[in-house]
This record gives sequence, C-alpha cells and structure tokens, in this order.
Amino acid sequence: MEKNIIKIAKDAKNSFLEMMTLDSTTKNEALRKIAQNIEKNKNEIFKANNSDLEKAKTLLEKKEINLATFNRLKLDENKLKDMIKGLYDLIKLDDPVNQIIWQKELDSDLILKKISTPIGVIGVIFEARPDCIVQISSLIIKSGNCAILKGGSESINTNTTIYNIIRNSLNETINFPKNVINLIFSRDDVKKILEMDKYIDLIIPRGSNALVKFIKENTKIPVLGHASGICHIFVDEDYDFENTKKIILDAKTQYPSACNAVETLLLHKNYPYKNELINSLNNAEIKIIENPENYSIEYGDKILAVKIVENIDEAINHINKYGSGHTDSILSNNNENIEKFMKYVDSSSVFANCSTRFSDGFRYGFGAEVGISTNKTHARGPVGLEGLTIYKYKLFGKNNIVDDYSTGKKSFKHKFI
Amino acid sequence: MEKNIIKIAKDAKNSFLEMMTLDSTTKNEALRKIAQNIEKNKNEIFKANNSDLEKAKTLLEKKEINLATFNRLKLDENKLKDMIKGLYDLIKLDDPVNQIIWQKELDSDLILKKISTPIGVIGVIFEARPDCIVQISSLIIKSGNCAILKGGSESINTNTTIYNIIRNSLNETINFPKNVINLIFSRDDVKKILEMDKYIDLIIPRGSNALVKFIKENTKIPVLGHASGICHIFVDEDYDFENTKKIILDAKTQYPSACNAVETLLLHKNYPYKNELINSLNNAEIKIIENPENYSIEYGDKILAVKIVENIDEAINHINKYGSGHTDSILSNNNENIEKFMKYVDSSSVFANCSTRFSDGFRYGFGAEVGISTNKTHARGPVGLEGLTIYKYKLFGKNNIVDDYSTGKKSFKHKFI
Repeated sequence: MEKNIIKIAKDAKNSFLEMMTLDSTTKNEALRKIAQNIEKNKNEIFKANNSDLEKAKTLLEKKEINLATFNRLKLDENKLKDMIKGLYDLIKLDDPVNQIIWQKELDSDLILKKISTPIGVIGVIFEARPDCIVQISSLIIKSGNCAILKGGSESINTNTTIYNIIRNSLNETINFPKNVINLIFSRDDVKKILEMDKYIDLIIPRGSNALVKFIKENTKIPVLGHASGICHIFVDEDYDFENTKKIILDAKTQYPSACNAVETLLLHKNYPYKNELINSLNNAEIKIIENPENYSIEYGDKILAVKIVENIDEAINHINKYGSGHTDSILSNNNENIEKFMKYVDSSSVFANCSTRFSDGFRYGFGAEVGISTNKTHARGPVGLEGLTIYKYKLFGKNNIVDDYSTGKKSFKHKFI
Repeated sequence: MEKNIIKIAKDAKNSFLEMMTLDSTTKNEALRKIAQNIEKNKNEIFKANNSDLEKAKTLLEKKEINLATFNRLKLDENKLKDMIKGLYDLIKLDDPVNQIIWQKELDSDLILKKISTPIGVIGVIFEARPDCIVQISSLIIKSGNCAILKGGSESINTNTTIYNIIRNSLNETINFPKNVINLIFSRDDVKKILEMDKYIDLIIPRGSNALVKFIKENTKIPVLGHASGICHIFVDEDYDFENTKKIILDAKTQYPSACNAVETLLLHKNYPYKNELINSLNNAEIKIIENPENYSIEYGDKILAVKIVENIDEAINHINKYGSGHTDSILSNNNENIEKFMKYVDSSSVFANCSTRFSDGFRYGFGAEVGISTNKTHARGPVGLEGLTIYKYKLFGKNNIVDDYSTGKKSFKHKFI
C-alpha cells in the first residue's frame, strides 16, 4: 500500500500544478464530499479510534504517555460534529487564492497585477489528535496547496481511516487532481522529506519543542512553527480585582497545556490586590512560583510564574527578553499604557484586557489553523487560509522593452488602478 | 574600530525595538539627511571609489575578477545622481508599517486588528556595487528594520565611506535609534551571523549561486534570495517578427548578466520566422545553442538556448521543469494561451508580450529592491518595502474570556469592519 516516498513527493508536486488554478466550486465540492463521507462512515471512524484508545491504554499504564495525551486521542460524537461543522464553515469562507492584491499601471500599456497563489507542497507533522488530519487537509485543499502529512503514531488507526475517507472523497470529486493529500507513516519518511527541497516548499511541525528544533536543524526547507508558547499577562496598577482574576483563571486553567495559556504573570508593584489574587489562584489549584530562576519555561500545567515589576517598561522589557513572541496581554484602564504595550511588545499577538487563550485560528475566524507561528517571516500568529498563500506578479504588456526606460525615451507611471 | 560581532547583533536587536514604532517623519528625515550628506561628501566617495578601482585593476590584470565586475564597481556622477534620486523617491512612498491590513469584530466588544510591522534584524550579504549599500540601507530604514550588512570586498573603501556617511546622518537625525545600520567586514563574521538565530530574523544573500547555496546550508535563520535566474520567453505561432526580435534582444542584450535576462527561448514549431529570428540574434552577437544538454544553465552572457516546442503545454511544462521560478514571458496574440501561461507557469513573475527585464523592484515601483526572491514563502519576486514587513495581531477586549465561547454562553461574530 505504501508508495515510495520520492514518488509521493513528485506526484504531489505534479498535482500542485493543477491544484494552483482549481476553481473555488470544485474545491468546495471536495470539502462537502469529505463532510458527507465522514458523517456516513462515522462508525468506522469510531471503531478505528477505539482500537487506538485500546493501545493507548497500555501506554498509559506503562506511563509512556500521560493522561492529557490519552484524553486528546479520544474522538466522541461532539468532536465529530465539530469536525463536520468546521468543514461547512470553511466552505463559506472566501477563496484565498487568485485574488488581486493590487494592480498598478507601470505605464499606460503595461499593467502589473499582484495575485494571491497557493504555496505548493507542504509537509505537516502533527500531534496525535483525531481532528487534526481533517482540519489540516481541509485548509490545504481550500488554499489550493498539496500536503504530505505525518500524524502522531498513537492515532494511526483513526488517521488512516479518515485519510482513506478524504482520498475517496477527492476521487469522487469531478476534476479534482490526484495526490493532493498524502499520508506517510514512518519517522524515516519524515527525515527523507526534510531533504526534498526540490519538491517540498514548506514544513509545518506541530508538537513538542524538541520536534520543532530537530526539524529546523535538519532541513533547508522553510519551517513554519512555534518552538514554544511563553505567554504573559501584565496587570497594571489600576485594574479591578474581579476581572483580573477572571482573565487569569481563564488564561491558565481553561486548557493549561495549550500553547496560548499564560505562563508568567507580571504584576505592577502598586497593584492593590496582590494577596487576594494569589489566594484565588491557589484556591483554583494553580501552583505559584514567585521569582523563578528561569522565566522561559513553558509549564503547560497549572503552574504560574509571578514577578512584581516596577512599571510598564519593565514589563515590556521582560516580555521581549523572556517571551517567545507568541501572545501577551495587558490588563489596564490606562489607554496610554495599553497603546505602549501593543506597540512595543514584539509578539505576533498582543492583547488588551482579555485572555491570552483567544490566540487561535478558529477564534480569529480563519477557518481553523494549521498552527501558530512564532516566525517573523511569511506568517505569524494563528495560520489559516491567508497564511497558506503567497502571490505571483502578472505583467501584461504591449511589446514593451526595458531599454526605452533605461535610455529615458519613456518613463514609468507607477499608478495604482 | 570594529565592534565584537555579538555586540553588534545585540545592539541591533535593541535598536529594533525602538525602530519598530518609529514615526514616518523621523524615518523620512533620516533618508533626507543621507541624501544631503552623500551630495555634500561626494568627492570623498569618488576618492574612495577610485582607490577600490585601482586595486580592482590589479585583480583584473591577474584575471581574478572579470571586466563586468570591474565595470559595475565604478561610481560616476550619473550613478551618484540616481542614488540620491532613489532616496527622494523612497521618501515619497507610503510608510509600509503600522498600517491596518484589516480589522474584524470577533464579538461586539472584542476587536482584532492585523497591523503591518517590520521584521527585525536582517543580515544582507551583497555584491561589489557601490550603489547597493545605499539602496539596501534606505529600504531597511523606511521599513523600520535594522540591518547587518556585508558588502563585496572589492568595494570595501566605497562601502566604508558611504557607511560612515549613513551612520553620521542617522546620528544627526533627532530621535533616530542608534545601531540601525551596521557594516561588517570579514567572512568569519558572516559565518558567525548565520548562527545567531537569537538576534537575526532574516538573511538576504545577493550574489552567486554558490553563496546562496552556502548560506542556505549553514543557517537555521530564514533565507530570502534567489539561487538562479533561468528566465524563458515562449513565442507562440502567431507573433509578429519585429516585436519578437525587439523583445528578445532587449531581454538578452540590454544587460546580459542580470538575473532577469532571458536564458532559454521556446519557439512554437509553427512560428513562421524562425530563420530570420536566428539570423537577427546572430547579428546581435548572441550565441545560439539549439537543444543543449542542460536547460538549467544561467549563462549571464550573450548566449541563448533555443528549443522548438510542439505547443504551449510543452512550453509550460518545460518552464516548470527547468526554470528557476524567477520570470517567464509569453509572446502571443491568443488570449486563451496568454491566460493559460499566466495561470500555469509557477514563477514569481509571469509576463505577457514584454521583456523579462522588467522584473525589478525599481521598475515595479517598489522603491528599489533588496533582492529578487525565488522563495515561495514570505516574499516572492522583487522585494521592496512590502516584502520587508510582516504583521502582528492586536486584540482589544473588555474582560473577555475563552470559556464563555467554549461553553456556548457567547458566540463569535467574525465580522470585518
């Protein structure tokens, strides 16, 4: 069943050339078929998921995986409903490619258009969560790209079953290119893919810091990912106790292992409710670490580092020094401070007076996300459809030559139209 | 005089935090001072350039550099005028950062804004041309970034003189951060920079394929550049002889060593003026190579590969297979073929009925360019101000927590405003 990995990559590249120009109707039709076939074959999916869960139970008993991983692995009716709803939501979104970004008259008979296009073949390595493969595949399809996917090994049965449903749905869709979504299974294949800069245009690793680091160090292909999520909340001296408490509890406890959960609380030295706040956090079973030795730890658990800061400047400097450029929030009633924080904190998402947990492709309205990027090139923050596109320049002329402009016979207009 | 390279990188990173939020007026004032001081100190610049030319003469005699490199090294009154004019043109362009790309209501009291921002500290390695350092520095300043520059060693005196003028101009500009533009001199320093992914956000290598390849293989930092410029012109069966000839001559001879010069001519098998065309190209001292063994050679000289193709599909396939994704042009009167070519050729610039030489930041109206990218992520084609920016998400809330949306108490609006 498994194809040679080079053949997979070559075929994906060839499919991309067709995919690049596919109309929106066909792409949406493919997404609709996937939604319908997932619904139709849900019992088969649950069966595959059960078999993954059985194996995972043994791993859990041997302590080779933790309870959080085990729980994430489970697919229930609600998750399946969300999966299907996500597909229909994505269908409704505008096609992100073949859009005119701008057009400009270089001269009266020479028109330059900047047009959004898909990127190409994207390698995505993702964690063991049964909803990932649908989310990622659907974003790849809608954005006109092709993908080579490698899922977490604990969800191999679920992934393979869903993958086959996706492949069949694409085959059923009239005019849809072959080999757009591909699944690989071994770590060796991942290593081979990292060397294929001829066929693969982008690698998106989702998962542990160690994985992202390994991939960055072992490929020439651009990598889009986040190494860690060290998120901060700075509480200014004037913020009220109830809202401070509500936001920190949400940011720390609503999903402690999420990358957008808060890891460090920076409290203004004049904040009047420090003791009450620490008590409330303790009551919510959050372990407080005051003045830790290392401020760059992603706890991913109900643990919170706390530091008292002199003023907003110390808070901003702390975040720019120890943060990971993911998501940082200020709680303040002082508009000048809010503006300063939003301007000077060099993170992909900067928030005022709300929880860091909003940093997410679905919540931003991107139709889910392929990941959250802490890169400072290409795409930053939650990456949805827009982040999976690039552009091309189309120049329409009437026998224009550069020599006429170099010799001064003609001159450029450069007028946006 | 030389600072430790780590100190240079750290200082640049610190300057970036100030630079990120600098207002347009200050940035334009800095550019104006540079223009004025270049004009004021032009004799000093010419003197430095003469000393570079003296040394280069010896290298030329020893055949360590070629005549084209020697000629590019020379700075005359015209080039200096263009340099100064380029600065004033750049001042007139809109500030590319702190622009609202879009804004969206996630909910009535939760507003998300996508704002353009500079990238950070950019390492640029560039060829021995005296105008490069001004072009690159001015784009870096206008886009709010910081740079560590390494110029071609043959222009070291010119570069150092111009660099000092730039540094002095920035020091004279009120409120302008220190250490925004930095010059390094040794290859060892370049190697060190490639390891500094903590301080450097992007590397732009300009120069030989070997240089670009070396850099891509030796850094984890994202690299923006073009490995080669294998540009094509496809002549359809219906195109008239005079315009075909005019465009090919411009694309091949106007500046043969430019990366956007044409390297391969694809002629439709029914093109009626094949012999006349080959004669005209021969008369222009272009060496024609029919059916070469290797179609992926960048001649950079008055040499042109020629292939007869069955139809437009063969032309498109040839370009996608052997091209470098730089710039490709179709000459045709058939609108269907033009549309097909522009859609299916997977290059950063696709042209209809004009010379490939238009692929250039100045000609596209970008205020010069830091390079032409054949990457498929971040920025593609000529990279000017826009390509030197990324964005951040600013979320303005009123004590919003994610839990309310997870539990279904509230729901997202996702409405563009």
